[in-house]
Amino acid sequence: MLVNGVPGNTINAEDRGLAYGDGVFRTLRMQAGSPVCWERQFAKLQHDCNALKILCPSALVLSSELQQLGKIQPDGIGKIIITRGVSTRGYAPSTQSEATRIVSVTPITAYPADYAKQGVRVHVCKVRLGHQFLLAGIKHLNRMENVLAAMEWQDQDVPEGLLGDISGFVISGTRSNLFMFRGNILYTPSLTRCGVAGMQRDRVMDWAKQHGVACKVADFRMEELVQADEIFLVNSVFGLWPVRELAGYRRTTHPVAWKIQEWLNDERH
Amino acid sequence: MLVNGVPGNTINAEDRGLAYGDGVFRTLRMQAGSPVCWERQFAKLQHDCNALKILCPSALVLSSELQQLGKIQPDGIGKIIITRGVSTRGYAPSTQSEATRIVSVTPITAYPADYAKQGVRVHVCKVRLGHQFLLAGIKHLNRMENVLAAMEWQDQDVPEGLLGDISGFVISGTRSNLFMFRGNILYTPSLTRCGVAGMQRDRVMDWAKQHGVACKVADFRMEELVQADEIFLVNSVFGLWPVRELAGYRRTTHPVAWKIQEWLNDERH
Repeated sequence: MLVNGVPGNTINAEDRGLAYGDGVFRTLRMQAGSPVCWERQFAKLQHDCNALKILCPSALVLSSELQQLGKIQPDGIGKIIITRGVSTRGYAPSTQSEATRIVSVTPITAYPADYAKQGVRVHVCKVRLGHQFLLAGIKHLNRMENVLAAMEWQDQDVPEGLLGDISGFVISGTRSNLFMFRGNILYTPSLTRCGVAGMQRDRVMDWAKQHGVACKVADFRMEELVQADEIFLVNSVFGLWPVRELAGYRRTTHPVAWKIQEWLNDERH
Repeated sequence: MLVNGVPGNTINAEDRGLAYGDGVFRTLRMQAGSPVCWERQFAKLQHDCNALKILCPSALVLSSELQQLGKIQPDGIGKIIITRGVSTRGYAPSTQSEATRIVSVTPITAYPADYAKQGVRVHVCKVRLGHQFLLAGIKHLNRMENVLAAMEWQDQDVPEGLLGDISGFVISGTRSNLFMFRGNILYTPSLTRCGVAGMQRDRVMDWAKQHGVACKVADFRMEELVQADEIFLVNSVFGLWPVRELAGYRRTTHPVAWKIQEWLNDERH
Protein backbone atom coordinates (compact mmCIF):
# COMPACT_ATOMS: atom_id res chain seq x y z
CA MET A 1 0.00 0.00 0.00
CA LEU A 2 1.18 3.52 -0.79
CA VAL A 3 -0.12 6.51 1.15
CA ASN A 4 0.71 9.68 -0.77
CA GLY A 5 3.32 7.67 -2.60
CA VAL A 6 5.05 6.37 0.52
CA PRO A 7 4.89 2.69 1.53
CA GLY A 8 2.84 2.37 4.71
CA ASN A 9 -0.53 1.24 5.94
CA THR A 10 -1.66 4.14 8.13
CA ILE A 11 -3.27 7.51 7.52
CA ASN A 12 -3.58 10.62 9.63
CA ALA A 13 -6.49 10.14 12.04
CA GLU A 14 -7.59 13.70 11.28
CA ASP A 15 -8.13 12.92 7.60
CA ARG A 16 -11.50 14.09 6.31
CA GLY A 17 -11.95 10.74 4.62
CA LEU A 18 -12.37 9.25 8.09
CA ALA A 19 -14.13 12.16 9.77
CA TYR A 20 -16.82 12.68 7.14
CA GLY A 21 -16.33 10.11 4.39
CA ASP A 22 -15.12 13.13 2.43
CA GLY A 23 -13.56 11.41 -0.55
CA VAL A 24 -13.99 9.01 -3.46
CA PHE A 25 -12.64 5.63 -4.48
CA ARG A 26 -12.25 3.10 -7.25
CA THR A 27 -11.75 -0.64 -7.21
CA LEU A 28 -10.21 -2.17 -10.33
CA ARG A 29 -8.64 -5.26 -11.82
CA MET A 30 -4.89 -5.50 -12.32
CA GLN A 31 -3.55 -7.62 -15.17
CA ALA A 32 0.13 -8.40 -15.69
CA GLY A 33 0.96 -5.63 -13.21
CA SER A 34 -1.12 -2.89 -14.84
CA PRO A 35 -4.60 -1.52 -14.14
CA VAL A 36 -7.24 -2.80 -16.57
CA CYS A 37 -9.19 -0.15 -18.54
CA TRP A 38 -7.13 2.52 -16.85
CA GLU A 39 -8.27 5.43 -19.00
CA ARG A 40 -11.90 4.75 -18.19
CA GLN A 41 -11.17 4.24 -14.50
CA PHE A 42 -9.20 7.45 -14.25
CA ALA A 43 -11.87 9.41 -16.11
CA LYS A 44 -14.43 8.21 -13.54
CA LEU A 45 -12.16 9.09 -10.63
CA GLN A 46 -11.50 12.53 -12.05
CA HIS A 47 -15.18 13.13 -12.67
CA ASP A 48 -16.04 12.19 -9.09
CA CYS A 49 -13.25 14.34 -7.63
CA ASN A 50 -14.41 17.29 -9.71
CA ALA A 51 -18.02 16.82 -8.61
CA LEU A 52 -16.90 17.12 -4.97
CA LYS A 53 -14.24 19.76 -5.67
CA ILE A 54 -11.41 17.49 -4.55
CA LEU A 55 -8.12 18.01 -6.38
CA CYS A 56 -7.53 14.77 -8.29
CA PRO A 57 -3.96 13.48 -8.52
CA SER A 58 -2.66 12.98 -12.06
CA ALA A 59 -3.34 9.81 -14.02
CA LEU A 60 0.40 9.29 -14.33
CA VAL A 61 1.07 9.42 -10.59
CA LEU A 62 -1.77 7.00 -9.83
CA SER A 63 -1.01 4.52 -12.61
CA SER A 64 2.68 4.40 -11.73
CA GLU A 65 1.81 3.75 -8.10
CA LEU A 66 -0.52 0.92 -9.16
CA GLN A 67 2.22 -0.50 -11.38
CA GLN A 68 4.74 -0.23 -8.57
CA LEU A 69 2.46 -2.35 -6.38
CA GLY A 70 1.59 -4.54 -9.35
CA LYS A 71 5.16 -5.82 -9.39
CA ILE A 72 4.41 -7.71 -6.19
CA GLN A 73 0.78 -8.54 -6.98
CA PRO A 74 0.48 -8.54 -10.79
CA ASP A 75 -3.10 -9.85 -11.06
CA GLY A 76 -4.69 -8.48 -7.93
CA ILE A 77 -7.40 -5.96 -7.16
CA GLY A 78 -6.31 -2.36 -7.17
CA LYS A 79 -7.98 0.22 -5.01
CA ILE A 80 -7.56 3.98 -5.06
CA ILE A 81 -8.97 6.22 -2.33
CA ILE A 82 -8.73 9.99 -2.75
CA THR A 83 -9.83 12.10 0.23
CA ARG A 84 -10.02 15.85 0.66
CA GLY A 85 -7.08 15.48 3.04
CA VAL A 86 -6.39 16.53 6.60
CA SER A 87 -8.15 19.47 8.15
CA THR A 88 -9.09 20.89 11.51
CA ARG A 89 -12.45 19.97 13.05
CA GLY A 90 -15.50 21.26 11.15
CA TYR A 91 -17.36 20.41 7.97
CA ALA A 92 -16.04 23.35 5.95
CA PRO A 93 -12.74 22.31 4.35
CA SER A 94 -9.78 24.59 4.85
CA THR A 95 -8.69 25.90 1.46
CA GLN A 96 -5.15 24.67 1.93
CA SER A 97 -6.02 21.01 2.55
CA GLU A 98 -4.21 18.73 0.13
CA ALA A 99 -5.85 15.55 -1.13
CA THR A 100 -4.74 12.25 0.39
CA ARG A 101 -4.22 9.33 -1.98
CA ILE A 102 -4.17 5.73 -0.84
CA VAL A 103 -3.26 3.15 -3.46
CA SER A 104 -3.29 -0.57 -2.74
CA VAL A 105 -3.28 -3.88 -4.56
CA THR A 106 -4.61 -6.97 -2.79
CA PRO A 107 -4.94 -10.59 -3.93
CA ILE A 108 -7.83 -11.37 -6.22
CA THR A 109 -11.05 -12.66 -4.68
CA ALA A 110 -11.66 -16.23 -5.86
CA TYR A 111 -15.31 -16.75 -6.79
CA PRO A 112 -16.79 -20.12 -7.77
CA ALA A 113 -16.38 -20.53 -11.54
CA ASP A 114 -20.09 -21.20 -12.05
CA TYR A 115 -21.02 -17.64 -10.97
CA ALA A 116 -19.84 -16.31 -14.32
CA LYS A 117 -21.46 -19.09 -16.37
CA GLN A 118 -24.59 -20.50 -14.70
CA GLY A 119 -25.15 -17.23 -12.87
CA VAL A 120 -25.73 -16.17 -9.29
CA ARG A 121 -28.53 -16.14 -6.76
CA VAL A 122 -29.30 -12.61 -5.59
CA HIS A 123 -30.75 -11.46 -2.28
CA VAL A 124 -33.37 -8.70 -2.45
CA CYS A 125 -32.26 -6.11 0.14
CA LYS A 126 -34.64 -4.50 2.59
CA VAL A 127 -32.45 -1.39 2.71
CA ARG A 128 -33.78 1.23 0.31
CA LEU A 129 -31.39 3.83 -1.08
CA GLY A 130 -32.22 7.44 -0.23
CA HIS A 131 -32.18 10.16 -2.88
CA GLN A 132 -29.43 12.76 -3.08
CA PHE A 133 -28.94 14.02 -6.59
CA LEU A 134 -25.75 15.89 -5.61
CA LEU A 135 -24.06 12.59 -4.76
CA ALA A 136 -25.87 10.18 -7.08
CA GLY A 137 -23.60 8.29 -9.45
CA ILE A 138 -20.45 9.25 -7.53
CA LYS A 139 -18.35 6.52 -5.92
CA HIS A 140 -17.86 8.51 -2.70
CA LEU A 141 -16.89 7.21 0.72
CA ASN A 142 -20.36 7.61 2.29
CA ARG A 143 -21.34 3.98 1.96
CA MET A 144 -23.30 3.16 5.12
CA GLU A 145 -26.32 2.17 3.03
CA ASN A 146 -24.24 -0.43 1.18
CA VAL A 147 -22.79 -1.71 4.47
CA LEU A 148 -26.24 -2.06 6.05
CA ALA A 149 -27.49 -3.81 2.92
CA ALA A 150 -24.53 -6.23 2.89
CA MET A 151 -25.23 -7.08 6.54
CA GLU A 152 -28.70 -8.36 5.65
CA TRP A 153 -27.72 -11.84 4.49
CA GLN A 154 -25.00 -14.37 5.30
CA ASP A 155 -25.69 -17.16 2.79
CA GLN A 156 -22.29 -17.93 1.21
CA ASP A 157 -24.03 -19.10 -1.95
CA VAL A 158 -25.66 -15.68 -2.49
CA PRO A 159 -22.84 -13.38 -3.56
CA GLU A 160 -24.80 -10.21 -4.22
CA GLY A 161 -27.85 -8.24 -3.09
CA LEU A 162 -30.25 -6.13 -5.11
CA LEU A 163 -30.87 -2.54 -3.99
CA GLY A 164 -33.98 -0.54 -4.69
CA ASP A 165 -34.58 3.08 -3.79
CA ILE A 166 -37.12 4.71 -1.47
CA SER A 167 -39.48 5.15 -4.42
CA GLY A 168 -39.46 1.44 -5.17
CA PHE A 169 -37.29 1.57 -8.28
CA VAL A 170 -34.56 -1.00 -8.91
CA ILE A 171 -31.11 0.66 -8.71
CA SER A 172 -28.20 -1.80 -8.57
CA GLY A 173 -26.44 -4.53 -6.68
CA THR A 174 -24.73 -3.57 -3.42
CA ARG A 175 -21.40 -3.41 -5.30
CA SER A 176 -22.37 -3.79 -8.95
CA ASN A 177 -24.53 -2.26 -11.65
CA LEU A 178 -27.56 -4.03 -13.05
CA PHE A 179 -28.92 -4.62 -16.53
CA MET A 180 -32.02 -6.37 -17.74
CA PHE A 181 -32.61 -7.60 -21.27
CA ARG A 182 -36.23 -7.64 -22.32
CA GLY A 183 -37.84 -7.67 -25.77
CA ASN A 184 -34.45 -7.13 -27.48
CA ILE A 185 -33.74 -4.00 -25.42
CA LEU A 186 -31.16 -3.60 -22.68
CA TYR A 187 -32.29 -1.53 -19.69
CA THR A 188 -30.19 -0.20 -16.84
CA PRO A 189 -31.51 1.87 -13.93
CA SER A 190 -31.22 5.63 -13.95
CA LEU A 191 -28.64 6.76 -11.37
CA THR A 192 -29.55 10.43 -11.06
CA ARG A 193 -30.98 10.15 -7.53
CA CYS A 194 -28.82 7.40 -6.00
CA GLY A 195 -26.46 4.57 -6.85
CA VAL A 196 -22.95 4.44 -8.27
CA ALA A 197 -22.28 4.70 -12.01
CA GLY A 198 -19.53 2.12 -12.41
CA MET A 199 -17.06 1.85 -15.24
CA GLN A 200 -18.30 -1.59 -16.32
CA ARG A 201 -21.79 -0.13 -16.80
CA ASP A 202 -20.38 2.28 -19.39
CA ARG A 203 -18.65 -0.57 -21.17
CA VAL A 204 -21.88 -2.56 -21.43
CA MET A 205 -23.58 0.50 -22.89
CA ASP A 206 -20.73 0.74 -25.40
CA TRP A 207 -21.20 -2.91 -26.31
CA ALA A 208 -24.86 -2.21 -27.02
CA LYS A 209 -23.99 0.78 -29.21
CA GLN A 210 -21.42 -1.22 -31.19
CA HIS A 211 -23.79 -4.16 -31.66
CA GLY A 212 -26.89 -2.20 -32.66
CA VAL A 213 -28.75 -3.17 -29.50
CA ALA A 214 -30.94 -0.46 -27.98
CA CYS A 215 -29.88 0.37 -24.41
CA LYS A 216 -32.18 2.51 -22.31
CA VAL A 217 -31.45 4.16 -18.98
CA ALA A 218 -34.81 3.92 -17.26
CA ASP A 219 -36.78 3.73 -14.02
CA PHE A 220 -38.28 0.30 -13.45
CA ARG A 221 -39.58 -1.73 -10.53
CA MET A 222 -39.16 -5.28 -9.23
CA GLU A 223 -42.35 -6.42 -10.97
CA GLU A 224 -40.84 -5.44 -14.31
CA LEU A 225 -37.39 -6.78 -13.47
CA VAL A 226 -38.62 -10.31 -12.78
CA GLN A 227 -40.30 -10.33 -16.22
CA ALA A 228 -36.91 -9.87 -17.92
CA ASP A 229 -35.53 -12.35 -20.44
CA GLU A 230 -32.13 -11.93 -18.78
CA ILE A 231 -30.70 -10.04 -15.82
CA PHE A 232 -27.01 -9.52 -15.15
CA LEU A 233 -24.73 -7.66 -12.79
CA VAL A 234 -21.41 -6.05 -13.68
CA ASN A 235 -18.47 -4.56 -11.86
CA SER A 236 -14.75 -4.15 -12.41
CA VAL A 237 -13.76 -6.98 -10.10
CA PHE A 238 -15.95 -9.90 -11.14
CA GLY A 239 -16.75 -8.69 -14.65
CA LEU A 240 -20.25 -9.95 -15.44
CA TRP A 241 -22.47 -12.32 -13.49
CA PRO A 242 -25.74 -13.48 -15.03
CA VAL A 243 -28.54 -13.71 -12.47
CA ARG A 244 -30.04 -17.18 -12.19
CA GLU A 245 -32.30 -16.57 -9.20
CA LEU A 246 -33.82 -13.39 -7.80
CA ALA A 247 -37.18 -13.33 -6.02
CA GLY A 248 -39.60 -14.95 -8.50
CA TYR A 249 -37.11 -14.88 -11.39
CA ARG A 250 -35.29 -18.08 -12.52
CA ARG A 251 -33.08 -18.59 -15.60
CA THR A 252 -30.56 -21.26 -16.52
CA THR A 253 -29.32 -19.88 -19.84
CA HIS A 254 -28.07 -16.35 -20.45
CA PRO A 255 -27.17 -16.03 -24.15
CA VAL A 256 -26.99 -12.23 -24.29
CA ALA A 257 -25.14 -11.91 -20.99
CA TRP A 258 -22.60 -14.50 -22.13
CA LYS A 259 -21.96 -12.57 -25.34
CA ILE A 260 -21.42 -9.32 -23.44
CA GLN A 261 -19.24 -11.12 -20.90
CA GLU A 262 -16.92 -12.32 -23.62
CA TRP A 263 -16.67 -8.83 -25.06
CA LEU A 264 -15.96 -7.32 -21.63
CA ASN A 265 -13.17 -9.81 -21.06
CA ASP A 266 -11.28 -8.20 -23.91
CA GLU A 267 -9.55 -5.27 -22.27
CA ARG A 268 -9.29 -3.32 -25.53
CA HIS A 269 -13.03 -2.61 -25.41
CA MET B 1 -5.08 11.84 20.65
CA LEU B 2 -5.54 8.23 21.67
CA VAL B 3 -6.19 5.50 19.10
CA ASN B 4 -7.50 2.41 20.86
CA GLY B 5 -6.02 3.81 24.04
CA VAL B 6 -2.55 4.35 22.63
CA PRO B 7 -1.12 7.85 22.03
CA GLY B 8 -0.75 8.42 18.30
CA ASN B 9 -2.33 10.27 15.44
CA THR B 10 -2.67 7.61 12.77
CA ILE B 11 -5.15 4.84 12.03
CA ASN B 12 -4.97 1.75 9.88
CA ALA B 13 -5.66 2.77 6.27
CA GLU B 14 -7.90 -0.31 5.93
CA ASP B 15 -10.24 0.90 8.65
CA ARG B 16 -13.89 0.76 7.63
CA GLY B 17 -14.35 4.25 9.03
CA LEU B 18 -12.27 5.49 6.11
CA ALA B 19 -13.39 3.00 3.47
CA TYR B 20 -17.15 3.44 3.99
CA GLY B 21 -17.71 6.02 6.72
CA ASP B 22 -18.71 2.97 8.74
CA GLY B 23 -18.80 4.46 12.21
CA VAL B 24 -20.21 7.13 14.51
CA PHE B 25 -18.86 10.11 16.41
CA ARG B 26 -19.53 12.69 19.11
CA THR B 27 -18.15 16.14 19.69
CA LEU B 28 -18.38 17.49 23.23
CA ARG B 29 -17.23 20.17 25.62
CA MET B 30 -14.59 19.46 28.23
CA GLN B 31 -14.66 21.40 31.49
CA ALA B 32 -11.94 21.23 34.12
CA GLY B 33 -10.57 18.12 32.38
CA SER B 34 -13.83 16.17 32.24
CA PRO B 35 -16.46 15.71 29.52
CA VAL B 36 -19.58 17.84 30.06
CA CYS B 37 -22.92 15.97 30.28
CA TRP B 38 -21.05 12.73 29.90
CA GLU B 39 -23.93 10.40 30.70
CA ARG B 40 -26.07 11.94 27.99
CA GLN B 41 -23.22 11.92 25.48
CA PHE B 42 -22.39 8.30 26.15
CA ALA B 43 -26.04 7.27 25.92
CA LYS B 44 -26.21 8.89 22.46
CA LEU B 45 -22.99 7.19 21.36
CA GLN B 46 -24.20 3.84 22.60
CA HIS B 47 -27.55 4.28 20.89
CA ASP B 48 -25.89 5.09 17.59
CA CYS B 49 -23.44 2.17 17.85
CA ASN B 50 -26.32 -0.19 18.60
CA ALA B 51 -28.32 1.12 15.65
CA LEU B 52 -25.42 0.22 13.34
CA LYS B 53 -24.47 -2.96 15.22
CA ILE B 54 -21.05 -1.61 16.15
CA LEU B 55 -19.73 -2.80 19.51
CA CYS B 56 -19.56 0.32 21.68
CA PRO B 57 -16.59 0.64 24.07
CA SER B 58 -17.53 1.08 27.72
CA ALA B 59 -18.37 4.48 29.18
CA LEU B 60 -15.54 4.02 31.68
CA VAL B 61 -12.89 3.41 29.01
CA LEU B 62 -13.98 6.41 26.96
CA SER B 63 -14.37 8.82 29.85
CA SER B 64 -11.00 7.92 31.32
CA GLU B 65 -9.39 8.46 27.93
CA LEU B 66 -11.06 11.87 27.67
CA GLN B 67 -9.88 12.71 31.18
CA GLN B 68 -6.36 11.54 30.36
CA LEU B 69 -6.30 14.01 27.44
CA GLY B 70 -8.12 16.58 29.54
CA LYS B 71 -5.08 16.89 31.77
CA ILE B 72 -3.28 18.61 28.89
CA GLN B 73 -6.32 20.44 27.49
CA PRO B 74 -8.77 20.84 30.40
CA ASP B 75 -11.33 23.07 28.64
CA GLY B 76 -11.08 21.89 25.08
CA ILE B 77 -13.38 20.13 22.65
CA GLY B 78 -13.49 16.37 22.98
CA LYS B 79 -14.18 14.15 20.04
CA ILE B 80 -14.87 10.43 19.98
CA ILE B 81 -14.95 8.41 16.77
CA ILE B 82 -15.99 4.75 16.91
CA THR B 83 -15.65 2.77 13.70
CA ARG B 84 -16.52 -0.84 12.91
CA GLY B 85 -12.77 -1.45 12.73
CA VAL B 86 -10.44 -2.93 10.18
CA SER B 87 -11.66 -5.45 7.65
CA THR B 88 -10.78 -6.86 4.27
CA ARG B 89 -12.24 -5.23 1.16
CA GLY B 90 -16.01 -5.53 0.78
CA TYR B 91 -19.10 -3.94 2.35
CA ALA B 92 -20.02 -6.94 4.49
CA PRO B 93 -18.14 -6.65 7.79
CA SER B 94 -16.17 -9.67 8.93
CA THR B 95 -17.65 -10.92 12.17
CA GLN B 96 -14.32 -10.71 13.96
CA SER B 97 -13.69 -7.00 13.27
CA GLU B 98 -13.11 -5.08 16.48
CA ALA B 99 -14.28 -1.49 16.82
CA THR B 100 -11.67 1.26 16.51
CA ARG B 101 -11.90 4.14 18.98
CA ILE B 102 -10.26 7.50 18.41
CA VAL B 103 -10.42 9.97 21.28
CA SER B 104 -9.05 13.47 20.99
CA VAL B 105 -9.24 16.82 22.76
CA THR B 106 -8.43 20.00 20.83
CA PRO B 107 -8.39 23.66 21.87
CA ILE B 108 -11.76 25.34 22.12
CA THR B 109 -13.00 27.31 19.11
CA ALA B 110 -13.22 30.99 20.00
CA TYR B 111 -16.44 32.53 18.68
CA PRO B 112 -17.28 36.24 18.89
CA ALA B 113 -19.07 36.85 22.22
CA ASP B 114 -22.04 38.49 20.52
CA TYR B 115 -23.05 35.24 18.78
CA ALA B 116 -24.44 33.93 22.07
CA LYS B 117 -26.17 37.22 23.02
CA GLN B 118 -27.24 39.23 19.96
CA GLY B 119 -27.44 36.07 17.88
CA VAL B 120 -26.08 34.91 14.55
CA ARG B 121 -26.76 35.39 10.88
CA VAL B 122 -27.60 32.11 9.16
CA HIS B 123 -27.07 31.09 5.55
CA VAL B 124 -29.90 29.14 3.92
CA CYS B 125 -28.22 26.14 2.26
CA LYS B 126 -29.04 25.01 -1.26
CA VAL B 127 -28.08 21.43 -0.35
CA ARG B 128 -31.19 19.46 0.60
CA LEU B 129 -30.84 16.45 2.88
CA GLY B 130 -31.91 13.13 1.41
CA HIS B 131 -34.15 10.73 3.33
CA GLN B 132 -32.82 7.53 4.88
CA PHE B 133 -34.83 6.48 7.89
CA LEU B 134 -32.28 3.76 8.80
CA LEU B 135 -29.63 6.44 9.38
CA ALA B 136 -31.75 9.42 10.40
CA GLY B 137 -30.90 10.84 13.81
CA ILE B 138 -27.60 8.93 14.00
CA LYS B 139 -24.33 10.87 14.17
CA HIS B 140 -22.60 8.55 11.69
CA LEU B 141 -19.51 9.26 9.60
CA ASN B 142 -21.37 9.64 6.27
CA ARG B 143 -21.37 13.42 6.28
CA MET B 144 -20.82 14.45 2.66
CA GLU B 145 -24.10 16.37 2.67
CA ASN B 146 -22.91 18.49 5.59
CA VAL B 147 -19.55 19.06 3.89
CA LEU B 148 -21.19 20.17 0.64
CA ALA B 149 -23.52 22.44 2.60
CA ALA B 150 -20.63 24.00 4.55
CA MET B 151 -18.82 24.69 1.27
CA GLU B 152 -21.67 26.89 0.07
CA TRP B 153 -20.69 30.09 1.88
CA GLN B 154 -17.47 31.74 3.04
CA ASP B 155 -18.73 34.82 4.90
CA GLN B 156 -16.84 34.82 8.22
CA ASP B 157 -19.73 36.66 9.87
CA VAL B 158 -22.18 33.85 9.05
CA PRO B 159 -21.23 30.99 11.37
CA GLU B 160 -23.95 28.51 10.49
CA GLY B 161 -26.16 27.32 7.63
CA LEU B 162 -29.73 26.07 7.66
CA LEU B 163 -30.48 22.70 6.10
CA GLY B 164 -33.81 21.65 4.67
CA ASP B 165 -34.69 18.24 3.27
CA ILE B 166 -35.71 17.13 -0.21
CA SER B 167 -39.37 17.56 0.76
CA GLY B 168 -38.82 21.21 1.68
CA PHE B 169 -38.99 20.78 5.46
CA VAL B 170 -36.60 22.59 7.79
CA ILE B 171 -34.25 20.08 9.48
CA SER B 172 -31.30 21.67 11.29
CA GLY B 173 -28.11 23.69 11.03
CA THR B 174 -25.15 22.04 9.30
CA ARG B 175 -23.73 21.17 12.75
CA SER B 176 -26.51 22.11 15.16
CA ASN B 177 -30.14 21.42 15.96
CA LEU B 178 -32.83 24.02 15.47
CA PHE B 179 -35.76 25.25 17.55
CA MET B 180 -38.40 27.84 16.86
CA PHE B 181 -40.58 29.48 19.49
CA ARG B 182 -43.96 30.55 18.21
CA GLY B 183 -47.20 31.30 20.10
CA ASN B 184 -45.73 30.02 23.39
CA ILE B 185 -44.82 26.67 21.86
CA LEU B 186 -41.33 25.37 21.11
CA TYR B 187 -40.99 23.43 17.86
CA THR B 188 -38.06 21.35 16.67
CA PRO B 189 -37.91 19.46 13.37
CA SER B 190 -38.69 15.78 13.22
CA LEU B 191 -35.50 13.79 12.55
CA THR B 192 -36.97 10.48 11.46
CA ARG B 193 -35.94 10.82 7.79
CA CYS B 194 -32.67 12.78 8.05
CA GLY B 195 -30.61 14.97 10.36
CA VAL B 196 -28.70 14.28 13.57
CA ALA B 197 -30.44 14.17 16.95
CA GLY B 198 -27.88 15.98 19.10
CA MET B 199 -27.57 15.83 22.86
CA GLN B 200 -28.26 19.53 23.31
CA ARG B 201 -31.60 19.10 21.53
CA ASP B 202 -32.66 16.63 24.24
CA ARG B 203 -31.61 19.07 26.93
CA VAL B 204 -33.72 21.85 25.42
CA MET B 205 -36.69 19.47 25.35
CA ASP B 206 -36.01 18.71 29.03
CA TRP B 207 -35.95 22.43 29.79
CA ALA B 208 -39.38 22.77 28.18
CA LYS B 209 -40.76 19.86 30.20
CA GLN B 210 -39.41 21.27 33.47
CA HIS B 211 -40.76 24.76 32.73
CA GLY B 212 -44.22 23.78 31.56
CA VAL B 213 -43.56 24.91 27.99
CA ALA B 214 -45.06 22.75 25.25
CA CYS B 215 -42.38 21.37 22.91
CA LYS B 216 -43.49 19.74 19.68
CA VAL B 217 -41.42 17.68 17.29
CA ALA B 218 -42.92 18.63 13.96
CA ASP B 219 -42.52 19.05 10.21
CA PHE B 220 -42.44 22.69 9.16
CA ARG B 221 -41.22 24.74 6.22
CA MET B 222 -39.21 27.93 5.74
CA GLU B 223 -42.38 30.01 5.37
CA GLU B 224 -43.41 28.95 8.87
CA LEU B 225 -39.93 29.27 10.33
CA VAL B 226 -39.55 32.92 9.34
CA GLN B 227 -42.84 33.67 11.15
CA ALA B 228 -41.34 32.49 14.45
CA ASP B 229 -41.10 34.73 17.52
CA GLU B 230 -37.63 33.30 18.12
CA ILE B 231 -35.30 30.86 16.41
CA PHE B 232 -32.22 29.34 17.96
CA LEU B 233 -29.56 26.75 17.22
CA VAL B 234 -27.95 24.41 19.73
CA ASN B 235 -25.00 22.06 19.85
CA SER B 236 -22.58 20.74 22.43
CA VAL B 237 -19.72 23.01 21.40
CA PHE B 238 -21.26 26.48 21.22
CA GLY B 239 -24.24 25.83 23.46
CA LEU B 240 -27.07 28.01 22.17
CA TRP B 241 -27.01 30.70 19.50
CA PRO B 242 -30.12 32.79 18.94
CA VAL B 243 -30.73 33.54 15.27
CA ARG B 244 -30.83 37.25 14.47
CA GLU B 245 -30.99 37.00 10.68
CA LEU B 246 -32.14 34.22 8.38
CA ALA B 247 -33.70 34.87 4.98
CA GLY B 248 -36.59 37.29 5.72
CA TYR B 249 -36.39 36.81 9.51
CA ARG B 250 -34.83 39.51 11.76
CA ARG B 251 -34.78 39.67 15.58
CA THR B 252 -32.68 41.68 18.02
CA THR B 253 -34.01 40.29 21.31
CA HIS B 254 -34.32 36.63 22.22
CA PRO B 255 -35.87 36.42 25.71
CA VAL B 256 -36.82 32.72 25.61
CA ALA B 257 -33.55 31.65 23.98
CA TRP B 258 -31.58 33.57 26.61
CA LYS B 259 -33.46 31.81 29.42
CA ILE B 260 -32.78 28.39 27.91
CA GLN B 261 -29.16 29.35 27.27
CA GLU B 262 -28.63 30.13 30.95
CA TRP B 263 -30.21 26.84 31.95
CA LEU B 264 -28.06 24.89 29.45
CA ASN B 265 -24.91 26.51 30.83
CA ASP B 266 -25.54 24.71 34.10
CA GLU B 267 -24.01 21.31 33.53
CA ARG B 268 -26.22 19.64 36.15
CA HIS B 269 -29.23 19.94 33.81
